[in-house]
Amino acid sequence: MRAVDIIIKKRDRQELSREEIEFFIQGFTRGEIPDYQAAAWAMAVLLNGMTPQETTDLTLAMAYSGETIDLTGIVPIAVDKHSTGGVGDKVTLVVEPTVAACGLPVGKISGRGLGFSGGTLDKLESIPGIRVDLSREEFLQQLKTVGLVLTGQTGDLAPADGKLYALRDVTGTVQSIPLIASSVMSKKIAGGAQAIVLDVKVGLGAFMQTLKEARELAELMVTIGRLAKRRTVALLSDMNQPLGEAVGNAIELREAIDTLHGRGPEDFRKHCLVVASHMLVIGGIAKDLSTARDMAERAIQDGKAWEKFRALVQAQGGDLAYVDEPDRLAKARLKEDILAARSGFLKTVNARIVGETSVILGAGREKKGDPIDHAVGIIVRHKVGERVEKGEPVFTVLANDPERMEEAKRRLPTALEWSDRPVDRLPLFYGVIGAEE
Amino acid sequence: MRAVDIIIKKRDRQELSREEIEFFIQGFTRGEIPDYQAAAWAMAVLLNGMTPQETTDLTLAMAYSGETIDLTGIVPIAVDKHSTGGVGDKVTLVVEPTVAACGLPVGKISGRGLGFSGGTLDKLESIPGIRVDLSREEFLQQLKTVGLVLTGQTGDLAPADGKLYALRDVTGTVQSIPLIASSVMSKKIAGGAQAIVLDVKVGLGAFMQTLKEARELAELMVTIGRLAKRRTVALLSDMNQPLGEAVGNAIELREAIDTLHGRGPEDFRKHCLVVASHMLVIGGIAKDLSTARDMAERAIQDGKAWEKFRALVQAQGGDLAYVDEPDRLAKARLKEDILAARSGFLKTVNARIVGETSVILGAGREKKGDPIDHAVGIIVRHKVGERVEKGEPVFTVLANDPERMEEAKRRLPTALEWSDRPVDRLPLFYGVIGAEE
Repeated sequence: MRAVDIIIKKRDRQELSREEIEFFIQGFTRGEIPDYQAAAWAMAVLLNGMTPQETTDLTLAMAYSGETIDLTGIVPIAVDKHSTGGVGDKVTLVVEPTVAACGLPVGKISGRGLGFSGGTLDKLESIPGIRVDLSREEFLQQLKTVGLVLTGQTGDLAPADGKLYALRDVTGTVQSIPLIASSVMSKKIAGGAQAIVLDVKVGLGAFMQTLKEARELAELMVTIGRLAKRRTVALLSDMNQPLGEAVGNAIELREAIDTLHGRGPEDFRKHCLVVASHMLVIGGIAKDLSTARDMAERAIQDGKAWEKFRALVQAQGGDLAYVDEPDRLAKARLKEDILAARSGFLKTVNARIVGETSVILGAGREKKGDPIDHAVGIIVRHKVGERVEKGEPVFTVLANDPERMEEAKRRLPTALEWSDRPVDRLPLFYGVIGAEE
Repeated sequence: MRAVDIIIKKRDRQELSREEIEFFIQGFTRGEIPDYQAAAWAMAVLLNGMTPQETTDLTLAMAYSGETIDLTGIVPIAVDKHSTGGVGDKVTLVVEPTVAACGLPVGKISGRGLGFSGGTLDKLESIPGIRVDLSREEFLQQLKTVGLVLTGQTGDLAPADGKLYALRDVTGTVQSIPLIASSVMSKKIAGGAQAIVLDVKVGLGAFMQTLKEARELAELMVTIGRLAKRRTVALLSDMNQPLGEAVGNAIELREAIDTLHGRGPEDFRKHCLVVASHMLVIGGIAKDLSTARDMAERAIQDGKAWEKFRALVQAQGGDLAYVDEPDRLAKARLKEDILAARSGFLKTVNARIVGETSVILGAGREKKGDPIDHAVGIIVRHKVGERVEKGEPVFTVLANDPERMEEAKRRLPTALEWSDRPVDRLPLFYGVIGAEE
């Protein structure tokens, strides 16, 4: 088998066999197939597509390209949750303690923010002392004893995916639905997931801008799940406007804490309950979504979800004083409201502009490895469909640098579109794919 | 400007500007744009195409990516000829001395054979002592004094093309008409050509298998010539069967010598006269094709073309005894006829199979740098349309190794297709593109 023949086959729109895909991915991971051949192949895949079977074969080849985690015997069924990324998406911080409190242990490997999109690890690290670099042994041990883990990648999981993603990033081959789908699913499978709930964001603040693309991605990931024998459900959720009110790190953590206490913004709370319900059903804890939802609501109401979160923070070395009294969390020196320049109904609160502005404030990073400021961020005071009077605050900006504050104040009003007539609220979800009921 | 944005633009089927193409090619040549970005870009070009203007900009960017030769003041007009490669194509060896004898000095940079396709330098090197590695100074000096040069690449002409071609070869991106056209034209322009006659081969033994592809390539090269202000004519010529009778190195040289003496196979002689005529017209030596053809025929008839060839051999250090008495040229130890297995009319004499068999005998190379055997080869005794009786020789095989002889004897009959009814001869040419009359 020769790499160039596999490239030519894909260039000529033929379907690659499992053996060809394994040969290519293994050779690429070992450095025997050079980057330039992988780049030409990735461009051919982007332009000519792949069948679901090819995408599944690619997913599994990447999933098994390095170490894997086997959770059999540690949890009854390993359920994972993945968001394709968005603005204000602190869902994991609420959902995982909730489902763990319902008796579904979850060990989750999370990521960091990049560009306009935030990351769970950054938010969690607002808690002084907390560790997100657990070893594999620590991960497994904590999953057994606490039933909940939130950490960064342990060991060399799916190295082919990491290597291919880095190459795609510099060769214009990121925007390929089969490559995105196999990247997501390979990491989940390498991490030991037997069942997966996918939160596929769509809209201005998501990687998938249209419902058509998002649906295509979601359907493909569900198909990969089916072919790879992993129970998979995908939710199509709105990311035209930020989720919840807080966009930043400490303030998002705080919003998650509020929500775990049964408070928190309505849209965010509902979103979390839906995701948690699907996890409970797919994990075999609840027989249907309505039972699952009751369980999740009860876990929050009776404080068990909160206790699970505290147990997580404690197990990972975080200082509980900061979560018990969130006022202690890092605070920005500057705080200013942005006032509505007119009265009217909000037609758009552009999540991407809000996300990009939060990066300017220092809450996110332009490129991997940039430092971030946990204290800064933006509070979104009004959502699409709401009536706002001129002079009312629309955003509250938290900054540590006056120039960045000024820049945020210039940019944030461009995130808004107004209407004189009533505007519908945005839905939380556009659909569910692969649900079993 | 960023390389990745240029890749994305081409990926998204947008037209690249001259500045973008120059940025990309210059960066790639200097090693600042890595191979993996160039590979992704080449695949995007192959799958999405390029406009004639983009292809011209690419041609010129590659032509001026390194040293160039300026022939102004040395020849009245620098005319070059290029063949896209075929089997039995020894046209340069006859045409260049002929037009030089007519008063059109030509300094030609030729190539070596690769795969089933032969190369002029290999054929010329059948002459003991001959040098094909002239320096730029020797090239220019000989062009002034002899009016005829045939050598390998002098200096670092169009290095971007060399580098890109090597990359295309291993990334499945060779078969792109814009990339092929710009590769050919960039080398010609870097070599100082002001006018170009292109011999675009089509058929079983050519890179372009169909007339449609060949015409597309020819038209594109003529368009590049027009946009780059180089007078360009492209001939579409048959390469379903080998050109002339000899396929090998010493035997092709000998056929060229015969033809320069006014003998040689009829098809080959005619082919050479047509190419020479176009060169004479495009070079401003003859006012029209029929005048040009008379001049070329006369140059052969009165021995001037032959004298020019001798002067070339002498100037480049070749031993004249071998061209004056071609019987002295290297001879293979084994010689066997392949006899017709049946009577009938020849419908096919597959040039590719003949070319591949000559490589097996040792006349060509599988990969760059392989040594070749100048003595071996195949003589094609009958052409398409001819009536052959059972038992008559169809091929004569010249070999130095009994096993290879056996292999050739097994393979060559598969090159033939027969008919019981008369079959038309193949045309020499299928058309001319860009002719001025």
